[in-house]
Amino acid sequence: MSKGTVVLAYSGGLDTSCILVWLKEQGYDVIAYLANIGQDEDFDAARKKAESLGAKKVFVEDLRAEFVEEFIWPSVQANAIYEDRYLLGTSIARPCIARRQVLIARQEGAQYVAHGATGKGNDQIRFELTCYALYPSVQILAPWRIPEFYNRFKGRKDLMDYAQKHGIPVPATPKAPWSMDANLMHIRWVLGHNHPPSDIFCMTKNPEDSPSAPDVLEIEFSKGAGLSSALFRRAAGGVAIKVPHGVGRIDIVENRFIGMKCRGIYETPGGTILYHAHLDMEIFTMDREVRRIKQGLGINFSELVYNGFWYSPECEFVRHCIAKSQENVEGKVQVSVLKGHVYILGRESPKSPYNEELVSMDVQGDYNPCDASGFIKINAVRLKEYNRLQNYSFRS
Amino acid sequence: MSKGTVVLAYSGGLDTSCILVWLKEQGYDVIAYLANIGQDEDFDAARKKAESLGAKKVFVEDLRAEFVEEFIWPSVQANAIYEDRYLLGTSIARPCIARRQVLIARQEGAQYVAHGATGKGNDQIRFELTCYALYPSVQILAPWRIPEFYNRFKGRKDLMDYAQKHGIPVPATPKAPWSMDANLMHIRWVLGHNHPPSDIFCMTKNPEDSPSAPDVLEIEFSKGAGLSSALFRRAAGGVAIKVPHGVGRIDIVENRFIGMKCRGIYETPGGTILYHAHLDMEIFTMDREVRRIKQGLGINFSELVYNGFWYSPECEFVRHCIAKSQENVEGKVQVSVLKGHVYILGRESPKSPYNEELVSMDVQGDYNPCDASGFIKINAVRLKEYNRLQNYSFRS
Amino acid sequence: MSKGTVVLAYSGGLDTSCILVWLKEQGYDVIAYLANIGQDEDFDAARKKAESLGAKKVFVEDLRAEFVEEFIWPSVQANAIYEDRYLLGTSIARPCIARRQVLIARQEGAQYVAHGATGKGNDQIRFELTCYALYPSVQILAPWRIPEFYNRFKGRKDLMDYAQKHGIPVPATPKAPWSMDANLMHIRWVLGHNHPPSDIFCMTKNPEDSPSAPDVLEIEFSKGAGLSSALFRRAAGGVAIKVPHGVGRIDIVENRFIGMKCRGIYETPGGTILYHAHLDMEIFTMDREVRRIKQGLGINFSELVYNGFWYSPECEFVRHCIAKSQENVEGKVQVSVLKGHVYILGRESPKSPYNEELVSMDVQGDYNPCDASGFIKINAVRLKEYNRLQNYSFRS
Amino acid sequence: MSKGTVVLAYSGGLDTSCILVWLKEQGYDVIAYLANIGQDEDFDAARKKAESLGAKKVFVEDLRAEFVEEFIWPSVQANAIYEDRYLLGTSIARPCIARRQVLIARQEGAQYVAHGATGKGNDQIRFELTCYALYPSVQILAPWRIPEFYNRFKGRKDLMDYAQKHGIPVPATPKAPWSMDANLMHIRWVLGHNHPPSDIFCMTKNPEDSPSAPDVLEIEFSKGAGLSSALFRRAAGGVAIKVPHGVGRIDIVENRFIGMKCRGIYETPGGTILYHAHLDMEIFTMDREVRRIKQGLGINFSELVYNGFWYSPECEFVRHCIAKSQENVEGKVQVSVLKGHVYILGRESPKSPYNEELVSMDVQGDYNPCDASGFIKINAVRLKEYNRLQNYSFRS
Repeated sequence: MSKGTVVLAYSGGLDTSCILVWLKEQGYDVIAYLANIGQDEDFDAARKKAESLGAKKVFVEDLRAEFVEEFIWPSVQANAIYEDRYLLGTSIARPCIARRQVLIARQEGAQYVAHGATGKGNDQIRFELTCYALYPSVQILAPWRIPEFYNRFKGRKDLMDYAQKHGIPVPATPKAPWSMDANLMHIRWVLGHNHPPSDIFCMTKNPEDSPSAPDVLEIEFSKGAGLSSALFRRAAGGVAIKVPHGVGRIDIVENRFIGMKCRGIYETPGGTILYHAHLDMEIFTMDREVRRIKQGLGINFSELVYNGFWYSPECEFVRHCIAKSQENVEGKVQVSVLKGHVYILGRESPKSPYNEELVSMDVQGDYNPCDASGFIKINAVRLKEYNRLQNYSFRS
Repeated sequence: MSKGTVVLAYSGGLDTSCILVWLKEQGYDVIAYLANIGQDEDFDAARKKAESLGAKKVFVEDLRAEFVEEFIWPSVQANAIYEDRYLLGTSIARPCIARRQVLIARQEGAQYVAHGATGKGNDQIRFELTCYALYPSVQILAPWRIPEFYNRFKGRKDLMDYAQKHGIPVPATPKAPWSMDANLMHIRWVLGHNHPPSDIFCMTKNPEDSPSAPDVLEIEFSKGAGLSSALFRRAAGGVAIKVPHGVGRIDIVENRFIGMKCRGIYETPGGTILYHAHLDMEIFTMDREVRRIKQGLGINFSELVYNGFWYSPECEFVRHCIAKSQENVEGKVQVSVLKGHVYILGRESPKSPYNEELVSMDVQGDYNPCDASGFIKINAVRLKEYNRLQNYSFRS
Repeated sequence: MSKGTVVLAYSGGLDTSCILVWLKEQGYDVIAYLANIGQDEDFDAARKKAESLGAKKVFVEDLRAEFVEEFIWPSVQANAIYEDRYLLGTSIARPCIARRQVLIARQEGAQYVAHGATGKGNDQIRFELTCYALYPSVQILAPWRIPEFYNRFKGRKDLMDYAQKHGIPVPATPKAPWSMDANLMHIRWVLGHNHPPSDIFCMTKNPEDSPSAPDVLEIEFSKGAGLSSALFRRAAGGVAIKVPHGVGRIDIVENRFIGMKCRGIYETPGGTILYHAHLDMEIFTMDREVRRIKQGLGINFSELVYNGFWYSPECEFVRHCIAKSQENVEGKVQVSVLKGHVYILGRESPKSPYNEELVSMDVQGDYNPCDASGFIKINAVRLKEYNRLQNYSFRS
Repeated sequence: MSKGTVVLAYSGGLDTSCILVWLKEQGYDVIAYLANIGQDEDFDAARKKAESLGAKKVFVEDLRAEFVEEFIWPSVQANAIYEDRYLLGTSIARPCIARRQVLIARQEGAQYVAHGATGKGNDQIRFELTCYALYPSVQILAPWRIPEFYNRFKGRKDLMDYAQKHGIPVPATPKAPWSMDANLMHIRWVLGHNHPPSDIFCMTKNPEDSPSAPDVLEIEFSKGAGLSSALFRRAAGGVAIKVPHGVGRIDIVENRFIGMKCRGIYETPGGTILYHAHLDMEIFTMDREVRRIKQGLGINFSELVYNGFWYSPECEFVRHCIAKSQENVEGKVQVSVLKGHVYILGRESPKSPYNEELVSMDVQGDYNPCDASGFIKINAVRLKEYNRLQNYSFRS
């Protein structure tokens, strides 16, 4: 008798193939679910593999358009960046994938969902908080946190043996000492403490091998999201943005939600260009003080998304506020991309308060420089009083 | 009879030379004060010029060491960056210059200080708030805000005529349509809305003309400030950090304190490298939650410094707190610099909580993955309750 | 020939009566404008007085409904409180008054507006920023900042003499050594450093003389604003909320925008009750994390409104976000009011995530206490690592 | 053979007495530890009770002085208040108690600590995070989260039966339907949704039964902490601050760290008076902008302490920063306490920038009101530009 039905987030690789078979072994009916978010994968082959391993059903879902529209654009609007460096390419993919997974689970009457994320990472949290938020009564099977599983599969060797025993196709090449996650926005590698080989990257060229002339792009924004340009069309069409320059590579140690520091290598060419271009257009068109408040909300957004709270009341609230702030973020940014560098050449907008005449040193216009004296003196009232009390002493 | 003595921040250029003579004409005794903060200048020539124009005294002050120690390092510790882009190279120079200026004014018994900053900019505010904070009873003469002055000198032509009439040496080359500010950390140009000529830059090479092999540097931090390395030694020695790569160039529209958006071009090679290296070391060594709070303080710091409040009770408070946060920011960062790009190669520290074993996917150690299930479930309590109330609907 | 037309914010008192006449004397046509925001005033008498003093036109405008709807409710939603104490009763009245003033100025083709606020206070800023924001080309006449005016009227004696000379009715009673501002929400007195006389208050009774039995009220909120209840109906009807208890009196030193500390006495009975009741309902119905973010926005709102930026892009943005946060702030709060104290008795809401069963110590339900162990252990990961590095020492 | 030694946080009540015996039954050696933080308890009797139940050792520790010095004062300095209402009386007691508990555990070579906190509350987290932070290798036994325990003791009846069976003295009175936590600062009750009986309170009188004349106190601060005054001396002497007025009672629904909303009744007379007095002195003496930053840090502090992170790097950092901000918070506040209300009568300080002459409407002094015109006009630059773009429309 079946223990019930489980919808497994299936990647086609060794780990989730073993999990598929192991779950069946444990008595579950397994529905394999494979999300296409722009990663480089033979989806037909993966479907056949899952079927051959005994999946009751296989869903291969094309989520590229919704990934771009509902996850990438809001992140671009937020200038989302975790700890000032990481553009959240994996973090925003997880709720997109998990949302469809629980939708399938509800449709198919499955009480369980499963995933192959490890027990020390962020992805387990992002998957599961999404599942609980959208399907509160769901039961989650995370084999890498189930002692029967993780005690049985202590290393790659154990997975290989199990695969061989159960007719799971075994990859010919020995596994690299890192894990990888890819989608149309970025690729992430989790490594130990060694320098990554320079041929690890897939979406970008090594800066040193890049063309020596820059690519010049023009990016157009409407309400803070991408309107047109080759870059956007490719993304919206689900084509991973690969660039012939080494743009968007970072090697960082970051702080996981779980409380550990870990090292990651990221490659986010399109996201990096969009980040810089959007930042430029935002400051060009947005009031200074609105932007100060929005900057804080963007930091909130980044932390929430990194920690897995995309589907939470607070993240929903923050997304609403940020979208409101973007109403006038409209215009075109010219960008030069060379080797690893993104350089903004210029910008134009029908909605910018930038006023060349007002700011000109040669035109006085409506502006009376004497007002600045009053402005400064009033700002100094408080400082003078402080001096009076503290008797500020010189230190030079 | 003299109206009193004024200490003028003198640059040696046409504007402040005219101001020097004009102030004398108005009946002031003028002390010329020229600060060396690493800009490219013939200080002896400037001294002689001031003397020949009738300055009662001339002070040429070498502030390079204190600029590095007291202004650049605290900014590096703060990861100071205004509106996510500008590294504040001019903003931090102003209080450094003005502090010495009021010190001289006090020593010389001068009731007045003067400067040549314009009436629409930030620099007037930075100069004057420093003066008022450190010498509350000082009187400030800002000719570009005095109608008798600015109505007389409506354009460069008027300055040239005045110079010729009063024996002020006139520059041979026609003035470029931008103003420039330089110190050992950076150069700023204020431009209108056109693309800058590619030969405007002084501290960096055009990325396209840069060497095609990267420079690899190692930067060592102690308490968040620079300890050694060629880069630091040069800076501390007052040598402007010029790099053979196009690192640290930006073209931005920024929001002035005065409420206008203005366009600036900056070139900050050393500061850009230090920014990235310090950020890397900080996140590597600092607790995640301390860093979140410190990040907010760093934003405060950046806004305060940009707006001219270096000498204010709140900026003093923030600097104290940030310095406290840096106690363990110690170690070495390896950096690759190529064309316009800074790429972090790796880092090491005796004080990092980074724990390769703890984070390893292969070593379980003290960490029990089942704990993560509880962690996630408790974090989901609130989300489930929200779902119960809102009846979260699917949108795909 | 007339210098032009000025719309004067007229209160009916000695100061603005003198200003009215003085402005005429200076050659302006004066339109007197008197706003009814619930203060205790004989508006007919004031109209006649203005007419008799030579006002070209007199507008007496009843702004009570819009003051409640557009200014008090958003402030209640924001839990607006400046420096943790002041409920902003005067701050929110100023933009309400000034908005109508510039509307009249535009309608009447007046290029000028004038007010009687002093040159050291906040009100001048609140008036004028509203005017500039809504009518950018307006010219503002602030006599207390015009040397010809303030040098002529150095004290009350000068105003009295001027009044007598120009047939302005002179108040019989000697002026109290404080200024007062009243509306249906509150009264403010600006005092020096002495204790105020206990009979200064108008809207509340001295606590010691209050009834010894509490008043019990029920307040109903819908989207964070008041729905019904006697309290709200009275306010919406423009009746100042006076309570027979000493609720809402405070004696504070506050920080003005202009950089000074000043002492004020406030009396805000209804606002104080609403503040506590709304806070209770908000935390009862709102998600914890949404509320954390909204709390920060409420602090932003309070500072902006205090400083006069009601009509600014950032305050508009913040009001939008706060209103969004209030969508589920719905229900009834029972309040006991006694002497100076407001005590919340209880609350009920159709939209609260409060779940008596979930929180019960006796019912386990869906909640597994073992999950808390994991939650705590994962939260401790970071702390243990810190201990490892710091060697946390005991201090007891 | 013993499973090891456990230090149990023992209260003397029914629950922890049963836990003591149950732990022995499970094979542990039990050291009973009872902290005196000012609660109303017969410590000698409790000691004897623990000995009679088989505790290997009993520690009764007087922590009152360190509770006041190291936990109450920093909280007063922070103006610590959770969700704008709760003064954290229980939250700050937990790390104080747990710190001594792990100190004893280390001294006695115990690998285990235990407590009687329930599995849905905050206290378990506060206890355990402190233990893990200060004694990372400790093992924690939380019986209310151990299935063998909580399945055996499903209600009070089971505890009573167990007590009778094992010679544990059984309380004569039936247990009230709430739990209580007391220390010298406050008492907390956790209730369901009914109104609490009016005789539940211990530290305060019902407002209606309070004296009808106010108590007038003077409170003196030095560096933001209490210097002298009867109130402080009593607290420092470990005497719970009871007042003959109903000050400091609140009935709230609050958000637990665990994600639930729960109802609590608190009684914090001394803490409430100190909160208001300190807030008054802080704003009186502190620079406005320092206080704005410090206010944010105080909110951080409150959330951290509420959630159990007293001993964390970030809370340590925040405490350091807040202490720095308090250097000039010095002076005396006069307070009137009546019924449930605290009213500030006045304040004086040798270190306040309050400047009666500067703020006076009658004295002009150094202040030039014309400067305010410039100040306002420059602040309006941005608003006018916004208007130009948005074409702000009138809505009245």
